[in-house]
Amino acid sequence: MSDDPVFTMHRGGKISVTPSVDVTDAAGLAMAYTPGVARVCSAIAEDPGLAADYTWVANTVAVVTDGTAVLGLGDIGPAAAMPVMEGKSLLFKRFAGIDAVPICLNTTDTDQIVATVAALAPSFGGINLEDISAPRCFEIEDRLRELLDIPVFHDDQHGTAIVTLAALRSAAKVAGKPLAGLRVVVAGAGASGVAVTRMLLAAGIGDVAVSDSKGLIHSGREGLNPVKAALAAQTNKAGLAGSTESALRGADVFIGLSSSTVAEEAIASMADGAIVFALSNPDPEVHPDVAGRHALVVATGRSDFPNQINNSLAFPGIFRGALDARARRITESMKMAAADAIAALVGDDATPRYVIPSQFDDRVAPAVAAAVRAVSSGTLVAY
Amino acid sequence: MSDDPVFTMHRGGKISVTPSVDVTDAAGLAMAYTPGVARVCSAIAEDPGLAADYTWVANTVAVVTDGTAVLGLGDIGPAAAMPVMEGKSLLFKRFAGIDAVPICLNTTDTDQIVATVAALAPSFGGINLEDISAPRCFEIEDRLRELLDIPVFHDDQHGTAIVTLAALRSAAKVAGKPLAGLRVVVAGAGASGVAVTRMLLAAGIGDVAVSDSKGLIHSGREGLNPVKAALAAQTNKAGLAGSTESALRGADVFIGLSSSTVAEEAIASMADGAIVFALSNPDPEVHPDVAGRHALVVATGRSDFPNQINNSLAFPGIFRGALDARARRITESMKMAAADAIAALVGDDATPRYVIPSQFDDRVAPAVAAAVRAVSSGTLVAY
Repeated sequence: MSDDPVFTMHRGGKISVTPSVDVTDAAGLAMAYTPGVARVCSAIAEDPGLAADYTWVANTVAVVTDGTAVLGLGDIGPAAAMPVMEGKSLLFKRFAGIDAVPICLNTTDTDQIVATVAALAPSFGGINLEDISAPRCFEIEDRLRELLDIPVFHDDQHGTAIVTLAALRSAAKVAGKPLAGLRVVVAGAGASGVAVTRMLLAAGIGDVAVSDSKGLIHSGREGLNPVKAALAAQTNKAGLAGSTESALRGADVFIGLSSSTVAEEAIASMADGAIVFALSNPDPEVHPDVAGRHALVVATGRSDFPNQINNSLAFPGIFRGALDARARRITESMKMAAADAIAALVGDDATPRYVIPSQFDDRVAPAVAAAVRAVSSGTLVAY
Repeated sequence: MSDDPVFTMHRGGKISVTPSVDVTDAAGLAMAYTPGVARVCSAIAEDPGLAADYTWVANTVAVVTDGTAVLGLGDIGPAAAMPVMEGKSLLFKRFAGIDAVPICLNTTDTDQIVATVAALAPSFGGINLEDISAPRCFEIEDRLRELLDIPVFHDDQHGTAIVTLAALRSAAKVAGKPLAGLRVVVAGAGASGVAVTRMLLAAGIGDVAVSDSKGLIHSGREGLNPVKAALAAQTNKAGLAGSTESALRGADVFIGLSSSTVAEEAIASMADGAIVFALSNPDPEVHPDVAGRHALVVATGRSDFPNQINNSLAFPGIFRGALDARARRITESMKMAAADAIAALVGDDATPRYVIPSQFDDRVAPAVAAAVRAVSSGTLVAY
């Protein structure tokens, strides 16, 4: 640990709370705090909309987790999840100027998580749910979206879906195949697998098959939970059963969100001009060099290979746009606009090794924010 | 509003979240975030104590309110309370280097507040309860102290009590009266009135009478809530009934924590060398110039008169000491040590116009922190 630069970097944490006004004497204190602050409180009590102008709330996001589905590590609990949530807060500031606060919860009970987030909601301009395991994450997000009048966004679902769709738009262009005609296999029916599938369907891709640890999901399978049953009704029109690998024969696209592995032969059995997004972290479902022997476009979640598909391309700009628009919701059209904006930055420059912008491409967050703002309903949040 | 410099200062809020590590390229991101961060998470999952070293938690405090008892404004709700909580966060950083996060809750239900704070506790090294109305504040603090293994401190109670006792020690010295022999009248039986009274009793002052809006509290009075009934059993040994002002005749000390007013004649009726702490904000129970005609020592909560009794002399150092010691509790002896440390800084320099240090006396927070650390049990917090 002591000779690992990662631990050195994380020592003491990665974020801090800093005053944005300078208080050096009694006169300053009398303005920032009592008695002066009472005038600001009274004004907000009279006109709640003023909270957006005279507090930090309108520029804040709570990054909320229960620590049950952290990275590839799984259910490691709230304390061990904190380094990821701090990292997320750091990225919110770095890419979008948003003040994000990590909140790691001491409960995995759906009702308690919903009640807790609802209780602390007046403190924040938005809620980023993070690393909460499926299927609870779906219900938690749905209920909070109903309860709250600020944006609620489960990044593992929608962030991944947005960036994946953006990359797929560019990859389809490189392959010379129309998006709607692609035959897609998604491995993984957790938070991200479900959300990616839904987004691909919404984008007009008709032929998507999804698998989980028990194989392909089809409407004839027993014991599907409600989320997977809904997925079965909308996907796998060919009614394929069996393994993920069997479904890859002749497929145009493989999207791995499963922490499973896929054999080289299965990749080799895909259609010409195949697209492979092996997104599991830190170990892709198939090594990109192996996939590259057979596929035209290969992307991973890793920074040490081309085409890194990473949520940080989406969530900072999504929230920046939603906060700026004072949107009450992150809508489907806002997510679709975000994906389109990211794909548009690659545009006609797309190549097999460039289907998605770099995380450090400074155009990304502003472009996403502008796209989100443009399609937001513009309804004022009642801070 | 537009020409009020207070509003200009508060625009956009008074605090921000800033990265404390620099991430400018993919290599940095791979350390601060995925995949590198997974090593830190795994290490904490294996040894939870490492969270204190590799996250910001051990240096953080949540400033939690339900907005029911904000300054002199009362129940203005969570949104309007935010400017005060931000101010408090600013002071935590300014005076003690602590990262404090304002949490304004959308509930006033005791059970829900307890459940919410308990749920988010893994995110913080301590909990500062703020501006929660009595008597709920007592139960909320008691239950959270039982539930959590991090310090929980209702500042309106204990911060006020600590600083008041510190000032009273110096004032008694100036008046040449032994502390234990003082006859004290406390106006106000809310959070601060109850806590100040308890602390004076703990410091050995035997003769304290307390009043609320219905007059003096005595064991013969009907309809006392449990907190006031307990107070009646421990105070007002003479069994005085009637008004606060009637009790002041011959008293050595008046402590106002009530938002009520006290007539000049009542102050004039006090004993020679009287001590008047008129602490209501922004309007003291009696104007300090009026009180000064009759009393030897006059203190207020205001920065524009001598002897400002303000919680910011206590809470930053209290939490600094408790966090540094990794104490699980703020104990009675820690609070008493803090009061003694503040009084000791004034020491023999005490005069009628100097019974308490300035808030900008840089010696205060370190002295309080050291005193708290010295008497802390030293039990490790299980982050």
